[in-house]
Formats: sequence, C-alpha cells, structure tokens
Amino acid sequence: MTQIYNFSAGPAVLPKEVLAQAAAEMLDWHGSGMSVMEMSHRGPEFMSIYKAAERDLRELLAVPDNYKILFMQGGGLSQNALIPLNLVGHKPEGATIDFIHTGSWSDKSIKEARKYANVNVAASSTTAVPAQAGWKLTPGAAYLHMCTNETIGGIEYQPDFSDPRLQDVLLVADMSSHILSREIDVAKYGVIFAGAQKNIGPAGVTIVIIRDDLLGKALPICPSAFDFKLVAENESMYNTPPTYGIYIAGLVFQWLKRQGGVAEMSRRAQAKADLLYAALDANDFYETRVAKSSRSRMNVPFYLKDESKNEAFLAGAKARGLLQLKGHKSVGGMRASIYNAMPIEGVQALVDYLNEFAAQAAK
Amino acid sequence: MTQIYNFSAGPAVLPKEVLAQAAAEMLDWHGSGMSVMEMSHRGPEFMSIYKAAERDLRELLAVPDNYKILFMQGGGLSQNALIPLNLVGHKPEGATIDFIHTGSWSDKSIKEARKYANVNVAASSTTAVPAQAGWKLTPGAAYLHMCTNETIGGIEYQPDFSDPRLQDVLLVADMSSHILSREIDVAKYGVIFAGAQKNIGPAGVTIVIIRDDLLGKALPICPSAFDFKLVAENESMYNTPPTYGIYIAGLVFQWLKRQGGVAEMSRRAQAKADLLYAALDANDFYETRVAKSSRSRMNVPFYLKDESKNEAFLAGAKARGLLQLKGHKSVGGMRASIYNAMPIEGVQALVDYLNEFAAQAAK
Repeated sequence: MTQIYNFSAGPAVLPKEVLAQAAAEMLDWHGSGMSVMEMSHRGPEFMSIYKAAERDLRELLAVPDNYKILFMQGGGLSQNALIPLNLVGHKPEGATIDFIHTGSWSDKSIKEARKYANVNVAASSTTAVPAQAGWKLTPGAAYLHMCTNETIGGIEYQPDFSDPRLQDVLLVADMSSHILSREIDVAKYGVIFAGAQKNIGPAGVTIVIIRDDLLGKALPICPSAFDFKLVAENESMYNTPPTYGIYIAGLVFQWLKRQGGVAEMSRRAQAKADLLYAALDANDFYETRVAKSSRSRMNVPFYLKDESKNEAFLAGAKARGLLQLKGHKSVGGMRASIYNAMPIEGVQALVDYLNEFAAQAAK
Repeated sequence: MTQIYNFSAGPAVLPKEVLAQAAAEMLDWHGSGMSVMEMSHRGPEFMSIYKAAERDLRELLAVPDNYKILFMQGGGLSQNALIPLNLVGHKPEGATIDFIHTGSWSDKSIKEARKYANVNVAASSTTAVPAQAGWKLTPGAAYLHMCTNETIGGIEYQPDFSDPRLQDVLLVADMSSHILSREIDVAKYGVIFAGAQKNIGPAGVTIVIIRDDLLGKALPICPSAFDFKLVAENESMYNTPPTYGIYIAGLVFQWLKRQGGVAEMSRRAQAKADLLYAALDANDFYETRVAKSSRSRMNVPFYLKDESKNEAFLAGAKARGLLQLKGHKSVGGMRASIYNAMPIEGVQALVDYLNEFAAQAAK
C-alpha cells in the first residue's frame, strides 16, 4: 500500500494510532468479551468510556464547570434548527437572532433560523471575517451566531472578541471544522457546537458545549430527544447515544493529550498552514481568494489560474496518494483540509507536488 | 476469554463475523488506504458502501419500489417527534393521531406526539396486544401508530392487520426491536422506523422506510436535517450521515443474506423463543407476565418468584458469561434479549442456567 494522505474536508483523516487501537479492541474491549458496539449504553463498561471522553474533552478545551458537554446526534447541520429551538425561548416572542455571514455554513444557519425567529445579518463577507467595529448588532438580540471556521470558503476567525459591545452579547459559535486546533476561552461563549467528523471522530456525533444557565429554555415544539436540558440531565443518555462514535472520539481525545494537547495542535496547525500558504503564495500558477488575516489553518481552498488543468492536477495528485483535493462543488477549484490528524509530512508532500505540477505545466 | 453471551436489550450483540471483518478493514478498506471512518460521504468509496447497504436492506425486507429507505440520526426516540413533524401536515389543522398503547415505548411516542397533534389512545394493554376489533379508531385520523415489539415489556404483534377498518388507515410502526426478525408486508404500512442498535448495527443509525407519496408534507417547524423529503431526495446525505454505522449495518445485511435472509431469521427466532419460554413455563421458580399469544420472540422478560434471589441469580449468570440479564429499571426482574445475532447455543446456556439455579435454590 502506498503512503496515502487524505485531504478530505470531512469525514476526514483520523490518527493511525486511534484506528489501530480500535481494530485491536473491536471484538473484545478490555477483556469484557464484548465489542464497544455491543455494550449497553448504561452498563459500567460504556459508562467508563463515556465519562473518560467527557472528562478528557473538558480538560483539552479547559471547559469551565458551569458548562455542560453534550454528545448528540444529527450533525452540525441539525444544530442550525436545534440552537434556535433551544435558545429563542429565553427571549419573548419576536426574538431576533444576529448572524455574521462569512460563507456557506453561516448561510445555511441563517436560512434555517428564519423558521424560528427574526434574523438580522449583522455583517457579511465571504473573503474575510468582517471587522467587529462594523457589526450591526440588534439591541436585545437573543444571541449572535457565527461560524468561526468556514469549511468551504476557508475563512477562520481569530478568537478575539474585544469589541466592548460584545460584553453583554450571548455568543453561539459553530466550530465544527476547527475545534481542538486552537486554544479558546470557552467562557466567552454561551454555546459552542461541532460536528465530530473533522477534528473529533467519526460522523454521527455532535458536540454541544453550553453554559448551564441556558438550559431549560427550549420551545415546546423542540423534539425531546434534542432538548439540551433533557440531554444534559441524562448525561447524553436521554436516548441511546452514538456509543461507538463516542468511543472513537474518546480515543482521539487521549491521542491529543499524548501529543501535547490543544496548544501543541495549534502550533502544528500554524506550521502546516504556513508551509502550504507559502507555497501557494510563492507560485503564480496558483491563486487563493481569502484575505491573509482570515485564512483558515484547517481548510485551504486554492485555484489553478488555468482551470483547464484541474483534472490533470487531481489525477496526478491521486497517483501520488494525495487524496480528496477537489474543492467543494459550490466554489470549484481545489481544497486541502489539514486537520489535526494530518501530519506535516502530508502537507510537505502536497507542497512538493504543487511545485512540481506548476513547473511541469510551465514547460 | 470465556465464551460470553450478551443478552443486552440494545446496543446488543452483533455477529462475530461482522466484527472481525470490521476489525480487518479498519485501517485500509479494500485497498483504498483509508478507514471507512475517514472517507468523504460523497466519494465513490463510501457511495458504493451506502448503495449496497440500501439495496441489501431493500432485498431483505422486500421493500417495494415506491418506498424510500432513509438512514437517519437521532434514534428511534427522536422519531416520536419527527414522524408527527413530517406527517401531520398531510391533514388539516387539528389532526388526530391514533395510538395503540402496549407499554413503555408506545407510551413515549404518545407523550411526544401530544406536542404536535391531538392524540387518541385507541386501545391499551401492557400484557397483550389488544384485539383489533376493539380498537377505537378516529375517523379521518392522520395515522395510526403502533410499537410492534415492546422492548421493555416483551409484547410483540403478529403482523396481521386483517380488520377491514384498517384498509384505509395509514399505519406507522416502530419496529426497532424486531425488524429483520420476521417477514413483513411493507406495503401494509405508510412508515416503518427502527433504531439500529438491536437487529441492524450500532447505535446512532435510524432506519425510516416511507411510502413516497408521504414525502413533502413536513410542518414548517420541522428541522431541515430531519425533513424526510430532503433526506430522501439527497439519498440520506442532506447532511453528513453516520457513515461508519451505515457501513456496519451493511455488513450485518450481508451476513443476514448469507444466513438465509429474514425467513431463516424468523425460523431461528421461533426456535430460540420456544426453547426459552418452555424452560420458563416448565419451572415454577420463574414467572412471565405477558399473554402467550403476545410474547415477544426478541425480548423475554421474566421474574424470579422469590425476588430476594435476584442478585444471586445475576451474579451466577455473570460468572458463567451470561451478561446483561437485568430487567429494565421501570419493571424490574430479568430480561433476556435474543436478537438475530444471538446463537441458539447462547439460549441453551441460559436455559441450562435457569434450570440449575432453580434446582439449587430448591435445595
């Protein structure tokens, strides 16, 4: 088998050590005689797995004690409905939700929220995170929603919310595609959510981190299975949770701790992103379209200036084991997703290919 | 490792062959260089896995062409809300849903449905499926909901809906804990749903089988991620599906086909249930509380007449590798769940233990 580097935007590459451990434990977890998939979610074996995963994630992100961590189903997309269903209750009828629009994912969140509340787009740009001073906030808004890393567009926020107007604003952040790749101050947010299938584990697990005073405000029409308060009170077992996905996420959390935690992931993310963007900037053959200050360290969209060479580029990449580099169909071009589990050797292999392909094409 | 038999009600035992294959393919699926967990859900590798799973399930249950099969998230419990959210739209305001109440799961469905529609309990019993002639149906009801196997109470329907009044009634069946264990005529139902974690695969996948004329009737407040029409139109990929769970379900479907399909599973279920109930009936030490005509072939609740011996019974069982026999906390006693993946040798081992424990206690 050739060395493969998988640049998929998600589901995405996982640490090899995690997969090897999962394979070794598949038929018999720790002498229990059972696969993790076969365990009752309420039994002592799975409860120990669940509690370790929760504890390790809390440690990795330094989640304060007054925040609950929920392991849910439905994906990040479902949260576009579930967040309003769970939060707009805390303001009277006619609540307005403020949004910062920075691309495809915030766009989806905005459309879905319109089903449940009034929506104000406080700022919009798909090439840079809009400057905070220009955000047109609604006084008394239920909350302010932002997607802090746009997976398709490749725009990432710096975790800086220093604008004094934000002191009293409830922040909700979709961190699906960059969670655990940089240190964050959880206490700045009311709710953080993330689909697992980028930096956490397999698709089918959704993490919600919520300040506990925000629980218990769900609209009556919110399905019970997705009522944050019921999920929190039952330690994510109001209904049967996605047990195997939680187990894999727990193995990823252990791997992260062994690597040095989020601070080390952030250092590596910077090194990988610097390497890749430097190669793209240095070569006129390629083009990037996001302002340098807002470039994502996780998702790197780029374009061949001569798009007639796209197919040849992808075919050559695949032949070298550089997989899933095609850009999202809505924006075209290429995209390299370089999540925590992507080693710098993979990025170096891509950079080498970028340079060689450009040199070849120039001949 | 001692031979283990896992009688968990779910998540539950899976075929050893399936787990062994999953372990072998964990790091490199079919030479792709990727784990199934790492594959883009829209890539050719996972699409081939998805399509095979859908096709095999369609074949196993003889699902007619005018039915869609959806692979969703949220568990069976979430369907208690999602079914009304997706179906009550097909009647005008003030729709009534009829329910047959047979235990804990239909009870939960009833409570949740009250959020979205009027509810009529057409019949109720927790010791036998109420006779159809006595069902008090609402003329023009949106649909009739039944839980065709109550996992906790151990009550199972015979798939016979011969009452002529049912000709024009839209039937919705929660088959979570006995799907694929008996042949059914899918065309009798409007919607069949099932959480995967009993006879299908790991927790975190929910199967919905729906007649296609019922799509497109969701209430405006239904979250898009759970709108059956959007899910169907996008081949369960409106958002990222629980890819690894679908892969395991697909392996289970292949295993079922190799075993002889649903007809063979039904034959084995009958043999296993006959063996276990005969032992319980033959021994005064034990008691069952469900009418013989309604006894579940999947979930067998039973009681020690002398409940002071419960702990000793469970400890002795565990020492022999007979795991997870404790009854649900809401009803106490014992429960043996004997799903498709439970070999008859496991049931025989339990029967041997039942007899020996009773003989020992009588001394």
